[in-house]
Amino acid sequence: MKKSPVFARARKNSKTGLPRGFALGYTAAMKKAHLAICTLAALMFLSAIQAAAQERVLRARTPIRIPDLPGYKTLKCDFHIHTVFSDGLVWPTVRVEEAWREGLDVIAITDHIEYHPHKADMTNDLNRSFEIARPLGKDLDLSVLRGSEITRAMPPGHLNAIFLTNSAPLETKYWTNAVQVAHQQGAFIFWNHPGWDAQTTNGLVLWYPEHTQLLAAGQLHGIEIVNTRDYYPEAHKWAIEKKLTLLGNSDIHSPIHFDYALANSDHRPLTLVFAKDRSAAAIKEALFARRTVVYSGSHLYGEEQYLRPLFEKSIAFNRASVKLKPKGSAVVQLANNSGLDFELTLAANPAGLEAPSRLVLPAGKTVLMRLRSTGKAGAPTPPRLAYNAANLWVAPNTPLTVILPLKISVAPPPKPAAK
Amino acid sequence: MKKSPVFARARKNSKTGLPRGFALGYTAAMKKAHLAICTLAALMFLSAIQAAAQERVLRARTPIRIPDLPGYKTLKCDFHIHTVFSDGLVWPTVRVEEAWREGLDVIAITDHIEYHPHKADMTNDLNRSFEIARPLGKDLDLSVLRGSEITRAMPPGHLNAIFLTNSAPLETKYWTNAVQVAHQQGAFIFWNHPGWDAQTTNGLVLWYPEHTQLLAAGQLHGIEIVNTRDYYPEAHKWAIEKKLTLLGNSDIHSPIHFDYALANSDHRPLTLVFAKDRSAAAIKEALFARRTVVYSGSHLYGEEQYLRPLFEKSIAFNRASVKLKPKGSAVVQLANNSGLDFELTLAANPAGLEAPSRLVLPAGKTVLMRLRSTGKAGAPTPPRLAYNAANLWVAPNTPLTVILPLKISVAPPPKPAAK
Amino acid sequence: MKKSPVFARARKNSKTGLPRGFALGYTAAMKKAHLAICTLAALMFLSAIQAAAQERVLRARTPIRIPDLPGYKTLKCDFHIHTVFSDGLVWPTVRVEEAWREGLDVIAITDHIEYHPHKADMTNDLNRSFEIARPLGKDLDLSVLRGSEITRAMPPGHLNAIFLTNSAPLETKYWTNAVQVAHQQGAFIFWNHPGWDAQTTNGLVLWYPEHTQLLAAGQLHGIEIVNTRDYYPEAHKWAIEKKLTLLGNSDIHSPIHFDYALANSDHRPLTLVFAKDRSAAAIKEALFARRTVVYSGSHLYGEEQYLRPLFEKSIAFNRASVKLKPKGSAVVQLANNSGLDFELTLAANPAGLEAPSRLVLPAGKTVLMRLRSTGKAGAPTPPRLAYNAANLWVAPNTPLTVILPLKISVAPPPKPAAK
Amino acid sequence: MKKSPVFARARKNSKTGLPRGFALGYTAAMKKAHLAICTLAALMFLSAIQAAAQERVLRARTPIRIPDLPGYKTLKCDFHIHTVFSDGLVWPTVRVEEAWREGLDVIAITDHIEYHPHKADMTNDLNRSFEIARPLGKDLDLSVLRGSEITRAMPPGHLNAIFLTNSAPLETKYWTNAVQVAHQQGAFIFWNHPGWDAQTTNGLVLWYPEHTQLLAAGQLHGIEIVNTRDYYPEAHKWAIEKKLTLLGNSDIHSPIHFDYALANSDHRPLTLVFAKDRSAAAIKEALFARRTVVYSGSHLYGEEQYLRPLFEKSIAFNRASVKLKPKGSAVVQLANNSGLDFELTLAANPAGLEAPSRLVLPAGKTVLMRLRSTGKAGAPTPPRLAYNAANLWVAPNTPLTVILPLKISVAPPPKPAAK
Repeated sequence: MKKSPVFARARKNSKTGLPRGFALGYTAAMKKAHLAICTLAALMFLSAIQAAAQERVLRARTPIRIPDLPGYKTLKCDFHIHTVFSDGLVWPTVRVEEAWREGLDVIAITDHIEYHPHKADMTNDLNRSFEIARPLGKDLDLSVLRGSEITRAMPPGHLNAIFLTNSAPLETKYWTNAVQVAHQQGAFIFWNHPGWDAQTTNGLVLWYPEHTQLLAAGQLHGIEIVNTRDYYPEAHKWAIEKKLTLLGNSDIHSPIHFDYALANSDHRPLTLVFAKDRSAAAIKEALFARRTVVYSGSHLYGEEQYLRPLFEKSIAFNRASVKLKPKGSAVVQLANNSGLDFELTLAANPAGLEAPSRLVLPAGKTVLMRLRSTGKAGAPTPPRLAYNAANLWVAPNTPLTVILPLKISVAPPPKPAAK
Repeated sequence: MKKSPVFARARKNSKTGLPRGFALGYTAAMKKAHLAICTLAALMFLSAIQAAAQERVLRARTPIRIPDLPGYKTLKCDFHIHTVFSDGLVWPTVRVEEAWREGLDVIAITDHIEYHPHKADMTNDLNRSFEIARPLGKDLDLSVLRGSEITRAMPPGHLNAIFLTNSAPLETKYWTNAVQVAHQQGAFIFWNHPGWDAQTTNGLVLWYPEHTQLLAAGQLHGIEIVNTRDYYPEAHKWAIEKKLTLLGNSDIHSPIHFDYALANSDHRPLTLVFAKDRSAAAIKEALFARRTVVYSGSHLYGEEQYLRPLFEKSIAFNRASVKLKPKGSAVVQLANNSGLDFELTLAANPAGLEAPSRLVLPAGKTVLMRLRSTGKAGAPTPPRLAYNAANLWVAPNTPLTVILPLKISVAPPPKPAAK
Repeated sequence: MKKSPVFARARKNSKTGLPRGFALGYTAAMKKAHLAICTLAALMFLSAIQAAAQERVLRARTPIRIPDLPGYKTLKCDFHIHTVFSDGLVWPTVRVEEAWREGLDVIAITDHIEYHPHKADMTNDLNRSFEIARPLGKDLDLSVLRGSEITRAMPPGHLNAIFLTNSAPLETKYWTNAVQVAHQQGAFIFWNHPGWDAQTTNGLVLWYPEHTQLLAAGQLHGIEIVNTRDYYPEAHKWAIEKKLTLLGNSDIHSPIHFDYALANSDHRPLTLVFAKDRSAAAIKEALFARRTVVYSGSHLYGEEQYLRPLFEKSIAFNRASVKLKPKGSAVVQLANNSGLDFELTLAANPAGLEAPSRLVLPAGKTVLMRLRSTGKAGAPTPPRLAYNAANLWVAPNTPLTVILPLKISVAPPPKPAAK
Repeated sequence: MKKSPVFARARKNSKTGLPRGFALGYTAAMKKAHLAICTLAALMFLSAIQAAAQERVLRARTPIRIPDLPGYKTLKCDFHIHTVFSDGLVWPTVRVEEAWREGLDVIAITDHIEYHPHKADMTNDLNRSFEIARPLGKDLDLSVLRGSEITRAMPPGHLNAIFLTNSAPLETKYWTNAVQVAHQQGAFIFWNHPGWDAQTTNGLVLWYPEHTQLLAAGQLHGIEIVNTRDYYPEAHKWAIEKKLTLLGNSDIHSPIHFDYALANSDHRPLTLVFAKDRSAAAIKEALFARRTVVYSGSHLYGEEQYLRPLFEKSIAFNRASVKLKPKGSAVVQLANNSGLDFELTLAANPAGLEAPSRLVLPAGKTVLMRLRSTGKAGAPTPPRLAYNAANLWVAPNTPLTVILPLKISVAPPPKPAAK
């Protein structure tokens, strides 16, 4: 039987001493392919097709998968962006295309009012970068907001004003006037990078009387707790205390790819805005109403009322409940359907249960969890799986505690047989 | 003003002559990081954490995003798999874990009945590989089917029988008996790799009287039109003519990573089964009812009734309709929410409209389409966007034609003003 | 013996029914890690470190590994680049940093003389983009050349002049004067994208009397046979006939990452220049001496005298010679030490030998080749392995034929024993 | 002038309001491509070619780029590997192919002597896994060593013996006898995973009298300081004190891709052996002579005499020396030509100089360093750049200190002009 053609494939391989399917450069498929390539021109044509396809993939938009919240759209926003019209390094339309490709919904162009290192070569018109960017935004269905960065020494440091109607009058001698003008235009005003090294005092991040004064005047509405890749715990604390809107922005000056490895799951910091719809008015309403979460690296910073549903709407078990025998175990699957990563550490050992002490839920993946009943008596209530979400922060050093949505019941230990 | 601390950041950069944000190895963030690393032990600890995180990501399941069809679950299946128990190279449980990681729902273990190159070292029990794999399948919620490959010279070549109750009696002298035994067990039986080089005749893929005989006896239900990375147009044609179920399987012998670049969007060939639920009974019913599509590389092969909804449920425009002025244009966005790639070529120029001649819709991405009214008179009806889906095949050389779900209206040209 | 602690690890696993090493969320390593994370602040710190590390990797230079030729450095050059100072979209320094990161050695800034769509917002000084870029080039050890694109209707179409001393006087009414001024400055002048769609005639790429006139006047030295991802066979043919230097350039307008998937082994088209050293003078000498090869996608276009050593210096066998028995076989390993991919198809079956009909040699990888003696008598000379390099083109449709540097000898068949 | 055909390209774009090169689905290149695809069969053929190419790339070897040391080859070795013949999950040949693909030079097959969970289905022959693996090793030019894991409770725990001549006699009642047999066969014997959780005592990693006894008898030659992804500082300390050879091995049971993200720069732990040549004898000599370094994650553990040249031969500056003016600065480029990552932290501020406090040198990349003279008087000697290599460990918590090979001189401050 060994000589039967049945085993042609097998025999060939056993002869070579190589495992099945091993690559040795001479297979039937190759031979056919070789014959089929009648002319070398075909190969050149092939190459052209491939190049064209590669370009198409390059130029697509990659949506950021973050769930909407009940009643709100989750908009991905960057409210701090520079162009060649101040000290940035790209033309304003580039900012729109970058944002579109990355899956953003909203950007604000916020060139410096006072700082124009390219002024020898460029116009000083403070509205131009916005005006150039806006039409492409319309074409691409991406909101482009008119903004400006009021760029002063500390205090008060740098302030962004967005939803302006005209940037020009912000160029004034006194910063108080500049802020007032922005305020009169109905702007949403926030303090930029409070922890920026160059404006700290002996390494300390300080809140000045000037900030109190702005706050009292209703002229300070938000604060960047993240700028570039930096997180400022002090700013986060102030935001909570003083009811300022949390913001996380890129402050991008270079082409975005210089600073973020976008092809490798990296992303610029974003302010997630929970808005009634995608209109500029709705975005503005949401910002003043403080409905934001900051998303930077794999971390999310925000109020529990937003972080909790973001988490809960991102994950799903493959079954609603688990029934364990004493000392029995079960494997459940936990899917993370969002584009967010989650890292969980067990908050407290659930009574009568062994559960994973640490869970990493990568974006878009499903992981296994083994649960094991310890079999010890006296576990009164159904055990709950409480985890600290080590990348969801309701305040500095304060992670969100989440309860995994799985019903667990442990059967009582069998009664000893009566004599 | 130049000496104001406001511009500390800017000045530092203009001094260096380097663009903002450029990496020169000495930034404030670095300095802080340096100070913070008090002991080198911290770095070692860090490394341990990272390693653990990396392992976790590695061991997750990556779901395959293909939409369900109305009334049916879309199950991702591989019905042709080998283990060390015939001429494969891995232990049966590896097949289950591989499939789980890759997002499959169903596998059949189909070791050869007649071919056991490892027999000097291993048992000859034909049911063992299934029995070893099944318990892990249960733990992982992945269906493992009992199958066998009846491995004979052509004709009839190799046949897979799945949903067996016992593989042992398939080891008989005559292949007709083996098939009969499988049939009596209620098996679903299909012809493997009809176009396999070693079993062709002068390079021709032939249908033998023996296949006609099997078909007549109700003992041949399906046919592999894809095996490994090979597609057999002849088999596709026969399947259509003779109402055989379309199958595409891996026939994997090596560890799956040897043959597929899974980390790089590559995947093994799959049979998509449209089943009422995930039970073995439902899978079997769907297979006998021929509700399958074959998914290999970026290509899908199947009946229009399945391919069309797969496509339509995968894509979405950012708006329902477009109204164009004469000679006007509009940009619309087309999202592909599935894990499938689509390549479209314009089937016919829509009357009065310029539309992209080619569209590449990468999995999970959104692309732009510009539509332009030619402004020519006499375009009677609203134009339709008909494309050939160059990777969706209803028959050999016959792509599916799809109509993109976008309502387009072109305003009539303005009337010349009356004199 | 089963209860011996020796098998603690094994038993734990056999209990779970899961394969060894399978991820179930509760391992000793995790437990330790959990304990070690005393404070959540540690996690935040960790995140900062990781972010900083990620930035560092981002900002590195990735050398392009292409061998030097005997007596010459192989310089990676792009001689066609735009900035915001004409119709490009980035500040000139960005072009230098992009090029540095990608591993280039030389760039020319070649903004349009006649075309300034940003002129409402920017200076018209034709030398500025070069002047802004040059200092960063010096810092980064990257040559930045002063160039300009003379941008006229066909004929003569667009011409680049590089190694200029002053771009301003090129702005004149007649293109002939512009070229003359460049020539007087000692410029190297080449015809850009001759196959550009917008300047073809009924789809034909034409050589005009004006080009003959330029050539005769010694005012045309090179021609782009590649621009962006497009290759022009007609231009390649002309270059060979008329002894023009071969050029392949990016003509980049956007940030480079918009057009090339740099993180995924994609690259802009390059002109490889074989220069005596890295000085501007040496580059100029090499260009006038026509010592270039064009590198686009995975293709290289150039003269045999340069392509052949590029290939030969890129590859190496793991042994110098192979001795085969009649009907015997051997496996050899072929390493590609360069950053170039090579695709080879067997040019002719070597006498008495079976060799792979197709060889793919991916950049930086080693592949296997099996050689097999057919055992047929009458193979007179030692067989040579001649392959067509399907991505190395000495002329349109004319691949380079390479001989693989392996000595093969086949032992004569054993003589039949005398009776 | 606007209507000149010169600006055909530009005008088209300015009309659309989109930046140059932006993807709108309708370009000339696309149109041409569309025409060229005469038949859909061409697309199918294309797909076949691509699939074949993908397979070829998959099956290549990726060399690990680590420099050789003066007089020695740096061999990449894994001395602890399991197969289906004990509790591993793959056929022995898979181990050879995995190792070849990953760029290893040497592996030892070390199935358990005492533990055979697959014994119901498989032979108990302790030499078989080696015998099956060896021939493929020969074909692939990869050394396969015969080894066994003596698998006992602690003490002494698990010991690997490699370079055995026959594994069978190691199956004896007393572990002392097993070790003695191995020793008599000339084996190199090492202690496996001393820090393995299941064999620690109250979390402590202990050295037992039994280990002292083995050492005294010349029957213990090495120790794993790394196993899987775990590093054991205690074992590292003992190795230094007791002059044991340092080893780092995978102890792989699953297919290698289950545990290491090989497509993403991850790698199994390796023992780097500095051997006179690639022969088994030379490897053995090097192991007994303790010429090894352990490579795990991005960390290297070993003696200074090996770590220092590994580092120094991996890196290169773009110039030999730097001359700084007072308060002047310079940018130098530091290339890492190896496949190793390096992380450096400044060991001490060099007198009169500012240098980066932290340097990340990614494998195969070049980074920038800015040096700045502080301009302070009294910097007596030429400053040296001393860095701690935070991933090169000469002992637990003891990084290697390296001096970067760059000559720096600072010009003296200009003398005040005489009155």
